[in-house]
Amino acid sequence: MAHQRRAGYKGVLRMKALRVADGRAVVIGHEMPDEAGECLVRVSRSGICNTDLEIVRGYAGFRGTIGHEFIGVVEQTPKGSQLIGKRVAGEINVGCEQCAVCLSGDERHCAYRTVLGIKGRDGAHAEYLSLPERNLVEIPKNVSDERAVFLEPLAAACGIIERVDIDTDTKVAVIGDGKLGILCARSLRARSGSITMFGKHRRKLALAEKSGATVYFATKVASHARTFDVVVEASGSESGFACAVELVRPRGKIVLKSTFSGRSVWEPSRIVVDEISIVGSRCGRFRPALDLLSNGLVDVSDLVSDEFALSDGVAALDRAGEPGVMKVLLNMR
Amino acid sequence: MAHQRRAGYKGVLRMKALRVADGRAVVIGHEMPDEAGECLVRVSRSGICNTDLEIVRGYAGFRGTIGHEFIGVVEQTPKGSQLIGKRVAGEINVGCEQCAVCLSGDERHCAYRTVLGIKGRDGAHAEYLSLPERNLVEIPKNVSDERAVFLEPLAAACGIIERVDIDTDTKVAVIGDGKLGILCARSLRARSGSITMFGKHRRKLALAEKSGATVYFATKVASHARTFDVVVEASGSESGFACAVELVRPRGKIVLKSTFSGRSVWEPSRIVVDEISIVGSRCGRFRPALDLLSNGLVDVSDLVSDEFALSDGVAALDRAGEPGVMKVLLNMR
Repeated sequence: MAHQRRAGYKGVLRMKALRVADGRAVVIGHEMPDEAGECLVRVSRSGICNTDLEIVRGYAGFRGTIGHEFIGVVEQTPKGSQLIGKRVAGEINVGCEQCAVCLSGDERHCAYRTVLGIKGRDGAHAEYLSLPERNLVEIPKNVSDERAVFLEPLAAACGIIERVDIDTDTKVAVIGDGKLGILCARSLRARSGSITMFGKHRRKLALAEKSGATVYFATKVASHARTFDVVVEASGSESGFACAVELVRPRGKIVLKSTFSGRSVWEPSRIVVDEISIVGSRCGRFRPALDLLSNGLVDVSDLVSDEFALSDGVAALDRAGEPGVMKVLLNMR
Repeated sequence: MAHQRRAGYKGVLRMKALRVADGRAVVIGHEMPDEAGECLVRVSRSGICNTDLEIVRGYAGFRGTIGHEFIGVVEQTPKGSQLIGKRVAGEINVGCEQCAVCLSGDERHCAYRTVLGIKGRDGAHAEYLSLPERNLVEIPKNVSDERAVFLEPLAAACGIIERVDIDTDTKVAVIGDGKLGILCARSLRARSGSITMFGKHRRKLALAEKSGATVYFATKVASHARTFDVVVEASGSESGFACAVELVRPRGKIVLKSTFSGRSVWEPSRIVVDEISIVGSRCGRFRPALDLLSNGLVDVSDLVSDEFALSDGVAALDRAGEPGVMKVLLNMR
């Protein structure tokens, strides 16, 4: 495809993309993105998120190119943009720019939004993607591609502090020792001196411990009951939520950080009697996350388990779904 | 019993009380309260709460005298108290006064607390009750007994604004047209110009409408989906919670105001994706509620369905459980 990269791309040229339809994923040739008024980004690397695996299984009813974590280089822009040739990552929600929510400055909750690789917009596991210039963030030289590809999930972790107050003395628990849980523990460790992770895997807990968190196996939850100011549920499981309810103190806050499809059973009486808050948290802003990476306050280099070529994207998805595997990257070069 | 009222009461004198044990309620003679260091209150009237009915059915595993809404007159106090002979209502949580939660000034969440007629402490459906002086609030003459007995549930309604910000422009929905829902609508109407109630009973909805709320049948929820800043769930039902999730806007707040026992099914994905907060709310402070009653900002006189003598307490519970019935009072005179 290399010879096509700088050519016109109006719907006729094709690129490789990892696409989902009817419950299965496949790498195929597909039309290059062609969104009027947006930037064309040549993707360098993308990261596989658990949400990608859920989308393959049917979550969100999405059909198209999946992937929403990436680093790339801007190849085409609308007139007047300074971003040509820049290394960028990008926020994934694209609002309508006209509704009250967008006009208030937060496209993330526009009811008419598209979301990169999740809703109404082809995603990042492809040679090229398209996003509006306002979504793109230039990446400084001291942040490598392998680190920058973590910006989206790290921003999601940073989004917690948009939703609950956390300061030096806030006693925080994180439930779930997966990629998201570890990013939550590491980003929150930059604010609070008291981060405790509960998980199930010795090796993953060690990754949180090395960034300053106290770690316990989930079997120890009962002996810490009702003691945490803030509990971040990052396991995406019903049992994780039950642990969160057990760990949080009266008038404390549970942050629901993981999306999971389907229905769940809960007992609302403790929420009422102990006046607990349950706070949903989804996407965060890239800027605070980029600061953490750029200043070396959060390391992510030990979280990559594997890297595949885009043409091996289906195998990469399989690998990402194996137990114990952390981040799997796709390399488009 | 009148001849015993001003006598010593050290465990030997008996009074009438509506007590619960083994899933049934009975009015029987019982020892008068005898708590060292507390005030003895001769109860004038008490109000039956849905929680009383749930306790009879087994909620909270309580055995003893039920009831936690009352107005009465102080008959005995510890040395030095100015409350002798005063008309009082009382906050229902009694903390240990020694733990960190109590020392921070909020006994309502003390892990070792007793709660009048709910947990570890005999309640208000009796000729006498006992509470610490710090729990009692003197009632001004312009608030009648029939109104003052609503202080506890009205304070619970006012407790919502301890948990979420509500101002003139906040668009509030209240789900459930029962007593608690109507008190929530009326107390919040004193703050916000936009209160909407969703309920199932024309006559009860009219009680909310007359205090300035817009009212709809619950069948109309879908046409108001995702439009409210704050939704108060006061129906205590699983379907009410589902309506709350449907009505709240992205980044809006659901206040869980009703305790209900048992387990419930929910779909956490909208909570995460739309970053909704679910906020439990239980007991409120009496002072703001007393101001609303005393200043005439909230009327409760139209919410009394019936009044029974204490000796007919079991019939009163039955009556309170009938469909369409609002507040049922017990009169101890």
